[in-house]
This record gives sequence, structure tokens and C-alpha cells, in this order.
Amino acid sequence: MTAAERDGSPGANAATVPFRVRLDRDSDDLGTLLCVGLDPAPGTFEGSAADHCRRLVDATIDAAVAFKPNSAFFEAIGLDGMEQLARVIQHIDDERIVILDAKRGDIGSTAAAYARAAFEVLGARAVTVSPYLGGDSVAAFTRFADRGAFVLCHTSNPGATDLQTLESGGEPLYLHVARRAREWDALGNVGLVVGATYPDAIHAVRQVADLPLLVPGVGAQGGDVGEAVRAGLDASGRGLVVNSSREIARSSDPREAALRLRDELNAARRRAG
Amino acid sequence: MTAAERDGSPGANAATVPFRVRLDRDSDDLGTLLCVGLDPAPGTFEGSAADHCRRLVDATIDAAVAFKPNSAFFEAIGLDGMEQLARVIQHIDDERIVILDAKRGDIGSTAAAYARAAFEVLGARAVTVSPYLGGDSVAAFTRFADRGAFVLCHTSNPGATDLQTLESGGEPLYLHVARRAREWDALGNVGLVVGATYPDAIHAVRQVADLPLLVPGVGAQGGDVGEAVRAGLDASGRGLVVNSSREIARSSDPREAALRLRDELNAARRRAG
Repeated sequence: MTAAERDGSPGANAATVPFRVRLDRDSDDLGTLLCVGLDPAPGTFEGSAADHCRRLVDATIDAAVAFKPNSAFFEAIGLDGMEQLARVIQHIDDERIVILDAKRGDIGSTAAAYARAAFEVLGARAVTVSPYLGGDSVAAFTRFADRGAFVLCHTSNPGATDLQTLESGGEPLYLHVARRAREWDALGNVGLVVGATYPDAIHAVRQVADLPLLVPGVGAQGGDVGEAVRAGLDASGRGLVVNSSREIARSSDPREAALRLRDELNAARRRAG
Repeated sequence: MTAAERDGSPGANAATVPFRVRLDRDSDDLGTLLCVGLDPAPGTFEGSAADHCRRLVDATIDAAVAFKPNSAFFEAIGLDGMEQLARVIQHIDDERIVILDAKRGDIGSTAAAYARAAFEVLGARAVTVSPYLGGDSVAAFTRFADRGAFVLCHTSNPGATDLQTLESGGEPLYLHVARRAREWDALGNVGLVVGATYPDAIHAVRQVADLPLLVPGVGAQGGDVGEAVRAGLDASGRGLVVNSSREIARSSDPREAALRLRDELNAARRRAG
């Protein structure tokens, strides 16, 4: 163990595996592209959010390459929400990649505090970040090669087209973001978030950026699994994680629902390959 | 007390004062445009963050119309960071407007959870939000007339120009945001964040949007107080709060530093008026 590991600094180990390498390797080893979202929305579960999420993790871990807890729902629980979130992340214990869905973004020194909160206080492996404040705000999250930063590019919601598709210099804003993200990817740890509800956007982003894509919006939000996979895989047939939250969590049998979606993703991957 | 007040739902009281009205009224009554930032960055204070911030509040309250705690620094403290943040907000007890600087933004249902965390769990009066996900993500924060949402428009950092100044249809992105924010302001509770480090942007935003402006970036970040005030005041000589964090907190006499900046802002306001 190095001194850096002992003092817990993320990414300080010289033998660090870049986030992107870990993601593709885990996805190959585990044979799945599925990320299971952990969104403890009020009224959708019994008992504590931490217990609910740990049960969901245990039920779906065979089907998942990653878990994506959404910070908002833990923050809304009350003042002990962060503690419950930390317990969920500890339970996963880096056996699967934890992508903290926090959509953080602030000016340099403040962004560094958010990165510390995500990677050190909570122990997440990756985090979602907003591009609006530019490169210096994202840089705070990309300093550690073995921690990932998924930059919001084209989101899955209806309002995505309010700003993200504004044309500038013949290209929509979200493709400017994709190109910038490529520049920000000095250490092999930057990815992009592109919603499954806009398959053309996934396709367009894949043309300009050879970065891992995190694709939410299949299932409850209406995105098509086959299209997302076809559009999102990189040239090596990798570089893609597809998230499902509600469809799995609210199924009567989350394990079965997760395995079915894993298989559906893999079938689409074989057809695409 | 109405039932809505008893159960603590923000904005549910029919006699609600819209956020913007409260901001201008408080600013007039207290004779100040100053917002004091509460950024407990590690290594800049002794004791707990909550105690540090409460001392800073007590020292500067005579000079301030608002306080702006920055969520990032509390989240980075550890798992009890939110509790410390809540204690600071309770200490202010709505005697001054609390603008939670959180820069949140997510899709509809998730944004609603962030709004609940900011307004109900933490008890903030207003929050900063990101525009990148569009109108449906901002709407979750603007449902309560008496709670404010300051939308990031042109931020104070160098990276602001990576995306915010991209031209679309003859106008930079940040002015599209300003125009959208006007549309989102159905209840009189939407504002914009424009950094003092870009006085031309403050001026341009003021031309297109008659909304309250939150202007960070004076002092340590280099923005000029006089220019910010001249460019930022609305036609009635109101609609502006200017934030200072480090310059006040790290002064040997925060009270004195806050009163001096208040007076400087008021002098600039008189010159502008």
C-alpha cells in the first residue's frame, strides 16, 4: 500500500487503472451494459432508503456493471440522507462501479469541494457533472484518472431541447459539449450523458466523440433499447452503459427485470456487432 | 396560521409575498445590496463550519440583505455537512434571505427532490440552479412564489466563455438563457446569476431581462463594484444583490469589511441613480 492509498487520496496510486479501462473491462468480464439506477423516491418503497437500495443492489448485482444512486432523492430524505447514501455506496464496496448522479458544476475551487464530497466523503467511483460552467469547472472532477466524470451532453427530458440543441456554427450546443469533453479527457476518465429518448443525438455524439456514454431514459421514459445500443457502442463494441431506474425498482421482481434488460442489451449488442 | 403553514409546505400560503418583492423590499428597508457568501473552505477557519459561519453571520448581518451558503463546502466536510448547513440556515432564521448556492439541475421528478431538499429539508429561501437541462428542470424550483430560483446565466469563472458565449442566432448562449428565464418567471421569483468579472455581460443581460441579478465575483475574483452596480441595477434602481465571500470571511475584521463593501455598493448605487 502506498502512502497515497493509506491517506485515501483518490487516484493517487501510480498503478491506477484509468476509469474508462475499468468500465470496459468490467463490462466485458461481467457480460453486461446495464447500470441500475438507485432513486429512492418518496412513497415508492418501505423502510429506510438505504435498506431499500441495498436490497435492490443485492437483487440486481448479477445483471449490472454499475449502479447509479441519484443524490437528489437522498438529499430530499432529510439531514441524514447523505449518511444513507454513503451506506449504500459502502454496501456496493466498489464491486460494481458507482456513478453518483449529482450533476454538479461550479467554479474551480468550489467544484473541487464537490469532487471531494463525491469521491472522498461518499466514495463514488464516478459522478455526473454539468458542462455549463466550462472546462475549469469540469477539471476539478477529472484530476483523478481512476475516477470518472460523465458530462451532461444531451439529456433525456423534454426540456433538453430548450438550450442543448441551439445551433452555433452549424452544430447544436450538445455537440460542442461533446467536442469539448474530448479535450477535457486527458486521463481517459471523461464520459458523456446522452438520453435514450433522443437516439439521433446518441448517434451524432458517437460520431464526434470516442468517449464512454451513459445512456439514461430507457423503459419508463420511453427510450428504445435496441436503438440506444446500436447508436451508442463505440468502434470496439464497448464504451456504453445503459441506465434503468424505475422499470427495475418498481418491478414486482427486480432481479428478473434486471436480468431481462441485461439480456435485451446483450442481444442488441450482438445484432449491432 | 394556515394549514399549509403548519405543515411547512413552502409557498403554500395564499398571502405569499413573491420572492422578488421580498428581495427589493428587504434591500430598501435594510439599505444594502450586499450578499455575504458562506464558503467554509477547509483550512480557512477554526472549529466547526457551522460555528464559523454563525460567527460570520453575526458579524455581518447589519451589512447584508442576504447570505449565500455554498453547499459544496458543507458537502465536502463529511456526512454531517448537511446538518451543519441546516444549523447555519436555522441561525439566520429568515431574518435575512438565504440563497443556497447549489447550482442544481436535473430532469423533472429529480429536480423536484432537489427543490424539496433546498426549501424544506434545509429551509433556504432561494437557490441557484443550472439552465442546461431546460425549462422543465427549472420549473421544479419555481413552483413556490415566495422561494427564489437564480438561474446561472454568465458565471464569473474563466471557463464561462467555453460554452456560455457561443453565438446562436446572433446572440450568445447566455442571453438565450436570460430570455428563457424571463419566460420561466411566471410567479415573480426567478433571477439570474451574472459574474462581476464580466461587466459587459451584466449590461447585456440587464437589457433583455428585467429580473433580479445575483452578482458574484467582486473582490477576490477581481470584479469591479462600481461597474457591477452601474450595469446591474434595473430601471427602478433595484433588482441586484452583489455577493462577496472570501474578501469578507478572510478579513481580519469581517464586520468592518462587510460594512465597507455595503457602503461602497450604496455609493455606486447613488452615482448610478
